[in-house]
Amino acid sequence: MEECIFCEIVKSEIPCYKVYEDEKTLAFLDINPVNVGHTLVMPKNHVPKIALAEEDDLLALTKTLKKVVKGVEKSMGVDNLNVFVNQGRDAGQLIPHLHYHIVPRYAGDGVKFDVPQRKLSEGEFKDVVEKIRSAIEML
Amino acid sequence: MEECIFCEIVKSEIPCYKVYEDEKTLAFLDINPVNVGHTLVMPKNHVPKIALAEEDDLLALTKTLKKVVKGVEKSMGVDNLNVFVNQGRDAGQLIPHLHYHIVPRYAGDGVKFDVPQRKLSEGEFKDVVEKIRSAIEML
Repeated sequence: MEECIFCEIVKSEIPCYKVYEDEKTLAFLDINPVNVGHTLVMPKNHVPKIALAEEDDLLALTKTLKKVVKGVEKSMGVDNLNVFVNQGRDAGQLIPHLHYHIVPRYAGDGVKFDVPQRKLSEGEFKDVVEKIRSAIEML
Repeated sequence: MEECIFCEIVKSEIPCYKVYEDEKTLAFLDINPVNVGHTLVMPKNHVPKIALAEEDDLLALTKTLKKVVKGVEKSMGVDNLNVFVNQGRDAGQLIPHLHYHIVPRYAGDGVKFDVPQRKLSEGEFKDVVEKIRSAIEML
């Protein structure tokens, strides 16, 4: 099995700039920061994505996320942030171990999210909402 | 006080394409989707950002997020997603009511995240990690 670099960080086999750690979670600086203070928060257990995470890991992750967001806000003196998870290659996930990015944001910081907006008809919206609703009901 | 459009959606004063609802959370389609299936998940209680959310709201939100992510994956037949929160004007937040975006992603879908990468020295990393760690310890 291929080694997961984030699992190696959890096991301290690879060093990191650690900002927080508890039983189930770990937070450390992204070494290719979008802006200064860019931090990653992840569960220690290896899981590639949200849908596969155990509930107790996910809830611990959420508590740590809030804690680290507050820490980044206070220490960097910033109130604007992006918090995101990239899931899968086509969404920009490089390491297949679930992690939240916390990125401080500033006016004119050069970060551009270039997102097309699709125009859907009323009928298309109704079709999509029905599909997702049904899928959730069948979970 | 200015009306919050998402609070009006919660109160059913404005319609939405609802995919899921429970006591504390609501999920509905983004009417300006980046890709088909673009869904928003939010707490019913008005709170602008993660750091200000009550723990029970945040944990309920996380459970709903997992549920809706699974629903979007299954119904759209997609495994690649971005899950994100924009916090503050400079991060692209348009409605000041905390909400997660779930955006299905595909190779060549035209979505571009143009992010500069800052180069930090070892000393700069150590300075940043110390600042964030201290801020978290003082929470």
